[in-house]
Amino acid sequence: MPDPAFASLRTRLRELVDLEAALAILDWDQAVCMPAAGGDARGRQMETIVRLAHERHVAPAFERALGAAERASESLDPADRDAVLVRVVRRDLERARRVPVAFHVARAAHVSAAFEAWRRARPRDDFASVADHLERSVELAHRYAGYFPGAEHVADPLIDEEDEGATVALLRPLFDALGEGLRPLVAAAVATPAPAPLPAGPYPAAAQLEAALELAVRIGYDVARGRQDVAPHPFATRIAGGDVRITTRVNERDLTEALYSTLHEAGHALYEQGVDAVWEGTPVARGVSAGVHESQSRLWENQVGRSRAFWTFALPHLRARFPALEHVDVDAAYRAVNRVVPSLIRTDADELTYTLHVLLRFDLELDLLEGRLAVRDLPDAWSARYARDLGVTPERHGDGVLQDVHWFAGMVGGAFQGYALGNVLSAQFYAAAVRAVGDVDAAIARGSFGELHGWLRDHVYRHGRAKPVDVLVRDATGGPIDPEPYLTYLRSKYGALYPALAHA
Amino acid sequence: MPDPAFASLRTRLRELVDLEAALAILDWDQAVCMPAAGGDARGRQMETIVRLAHERHVAPAFERALGAAERASESLDPADRDAVLVRVVRRDLERARRVPVAFHVARAAHVSAAFEAWRRARPRDDFASVADHLERSVELAHRYAGYFPGAEHVADPLIDEEDEGATVALLRPLFDALGEGLRPLVAAAVATPAPAPLPAGPYPAAAQLEAALELAVRIGYDVARGRQDVAPHPFATRIAGGDVRITTRVNERDLTEALYSTLHEAGHALYEQGVDAVWEGTPVARGVSAGVHESQSRLWENQVGRSRAFWTFALPHLRARFPALEHVDVDAAYRAVNRVVPSLIRTDADELTYTLHVLLRFDLELDLLEGRLAVRDLPDAWSARYARDLGVTPERHGDGVLQDVHWFAGMVGGAFQGYALGNVLSAQFYAAAVRAVGDVDAAIARGSFGELHGWLRDHVYRHGRAKPVDVLVRDATGGPIDPEPYLTYLRSKYGALYPALAHA
Repeated sequence: MPDPAFASLRTRLRELVDLEAALAILDWDQAVCMPAAGGDARGRQMETIVRLAHERHVAPAFERALGAAERASESLDPADRDAVLVRVVRRDLERARRVPVAFHVARAAHVSAAFEAWRRARPRDDFASVADHLERSVELAHRYAGYFPGAEHVADPLIDEEDEGATVALLRPLFDALGEGLRPLVAAAVATPAPAPLPAGPYPAAAQLEAALELAVRIGYDVARGRQDVAPHPFATRIAGGDVRITTRVNERDLTEALYSTLHEAGHALYEQGVDAVWEGTPVARGVSAGVHESQSRLWENQVGRSRAFWTFALPHLRARFPALEHVDVDAAYRAVNRVVPSLIRTDADELTYTLHVLLRFDLELDLLEGRLAVRDLPDAWSARYARDLGVTPERHGDGVLQDVHWFAGMVGGAFQGYALGNVLSAQFYAAAVRAVGDVDAAIARGSFGELHGWLRDHVYRHGRAKPVDVLVRDATGGPIDPEPYLTYLRSKYGALYPALAHA
Repeated sequence: MPDPAFASLRTRLRELVDLEAALAILDWDQAVCMPAAGGDARGRQMETIVRLAHERHVAPAFERALGAAERASESLDPADRDAVLVRVVRRDLERARRVPVAFHVARAAHVSAAFEAWRRARPRDDFASVADHLERSVELAHRYAGYFPGAEHVADPLIDEEDEGATVALLRPLFDALGEGLRPLVAAAVATPAPAPLPAGPYPAAAQLEAALELAVRIGYDVARGRQDVAPHPFATRIAGGDVRITTRVNERDLTEALYSTLHEAGHALYEQGVDAVWEGTPVARGVSAGVHESQSRLWENQVGRSRAFWTFALPHLRARFPALEHVDVDAAYRAVNRVVPSLIRTDADELTYTLHVLLRFDLELDLLEGRLAVRDLPDAWSARYARDLGVTPERHGDGVLQDVHWFAGMVGGAFQGYALGNVLSAQFYAAAVRAVGDVDAAIARGSFGELHGWLRDHVYRHGRAKPVDVLVRDATGGPIDPEPYLTYLRSKYGALYPALAHA
């Protein structure tokens, strides 16, 4: 019979999870439904919930409940569910304790105000109106780091919040190797004329949303436990195991926006929907890190969604729905969705250049945090780096430094490393799945995604936060995080598409 | 300079208001967006918020803050804003204190489970599957009444929660007079052949929603501080002064469902949007009672929306959008939307019979609570009463006892008196507005709703809960609640439409 200390701890955890869910709904609603005039009140509402949750988390009664559960878990196997839970809860509590409630309140208020300011500023290219918010995002990052005096780098506590265990010292060599591997591939690809894109529509919005959702369901998204909405900056959110939502953006001239934003967010949602139900109502019931989460969105978007096999399956369905695709064959579609064109917008970037968008943001974040770059100089630094790495320069801030919500929806730091880690891990997981279940491509070409989904569920999704990232990656792939499989995958795929690249 | 005790109290009130707003969003989302699989978790989430809000409300620190504000208010004019606030807060606290947190938790859990059960049962006419929930709704009402030992009738504390100051002893004579006045009018009207309804469409759903929202905006609904969605059981909800939402149901064969559910909910929303901004973030910032709230939804739906003046203005707009209305003139439209046909569904009922639907529910509630009627006998009692009062009998529970959410979204008792009070008050307020601003009908026929809206805002909306209901009604209309103006209005309107009725 289990020790009652665990039930008592779980009661307290459920309360925190419920408050987080309320916060997630307030946030989803703000992005999808809320009239702008509700923004000020929404900021206060979220502030209040954050503050209450934090107070309950760091209250002496919570420590007592956790302490009792820890004592009870001493006699358990370390792999026992209660023992695992107690370890995760202790880690979260120690982190939460370092940060005073006043900081969380200030952060929540900042997020709400900065998000609204960014939403208004972006279409008007108005960097000046958000510069103060961005200063504040930097300032909050420094204050946050101040609560972790042992940190080697000011960004480390922020990175650790998203990608537990990662640090600037660990990521820099990994990202250097990645950048060095990528740049010659990109250079070789852009030296070659790009293949034709898909026809420019028309692709009616409603039909696109329907088609994209159908494909999401086909790969395994359980829409009975979720829903799809339109949002300018798509995201996925977990309200509960039975309520994991995705959002999608749509462009009637470009089929790929809705298609790939949906597959991307569906990848996140598959992860959240796949967490073992035994963890429901505990902090274990969610994705373990930003990097592993992004590995799933990118795996389904790219390794799957931009494969020849996927188009072999999907093209007839899409052609039946969109007459604009009438004369497109699988080969042309495959080439079209894999054309390499250096662009200004990260979320529009092709698979090959995408990581360079991310790495430059990671570097700019560190520059801002280290004081080597002032907020007012950020637009110029942004342009210079885009010119150097991708050979393009934004003409308007909306296509430049205002394109991403991240720095306006939290702090500067910790926001972007997950995207690069995700690409790296996506290739490692995909390769491991292929080794384990055989010819995944052939299954996909038949429209059968269950083999791949099943392997990912068993080796990644179901664990939630039960295994630390390094253990999860090692157990699933047999080795540590390693950029080589991703570079190998890109060389092989794009080498076939761009012969010049085979010699890069 | 105001006493700091007021600022301190307002800080605590804002926290409660924020938690209520979170609850309102969780509730709105459950009705409008949430996948059914999220229902169990949603129940827990709402439970947690209710419990935390209650704990904060009845905490010693809240009493101390209120006590200090009360002492500071002793030197103030009773009409001073802080003095008013303190009185409302004290009344709420005394009521909240009587009810233990365990009850609120049980109630929230019940509401969530019962609502989901009802949502599934209604289309399947499955009364058996909700009977236990209904028993529980009755049981909870008794438990609730038990916390108010001074109450004369078991329903009084529940009625007081919705319509402060009202009791069974006060309502029974008022409702008896109302029923006695109504029954001969209904009998005379149904003895006359009903005029033709509006043509049966087609009225495409999207166009209906657009047209209905346009009319709501025309009467004064500020959609920049709200939004319209579809829900099978329409409602309006206040998230904040800047975020007051309405929902609408649509029937492609019947224009009146979307039109009148929208005008009805827009009436509620005008009230909530009209509360003076000085009350934002306090419990004063909402409608004062169910009855006064309903007076506004019914006034805009019926006194305005079913008037000849309204159709003089609205018909050209609707005809331009819906070819089905091509051969309908104002007189035919006016007659069509005022046809008296005894029906089974309260929310579809014409203006004349509507109140009889409500009065019978009020009586059945009391019968259930007084133990004179068992839940298992409710469907039969329902049928018998419909046969007696309206001459119709439901063939399926979905058209009968399962049609309203109320008993499954809370308790039995206190749910229906507000609808009858609302009708009574709507006529009193409308008559007072006409006395004050002159020919409201002529303005409406020109599409000018500001005169009426302005008077209502000044005399009803802006006060929120600052004035008790009896004071509000007396100040606005010059007298107490009185069924006579409503009966006079009905006699005059329907006497012209149904000559037989003039002699009833």
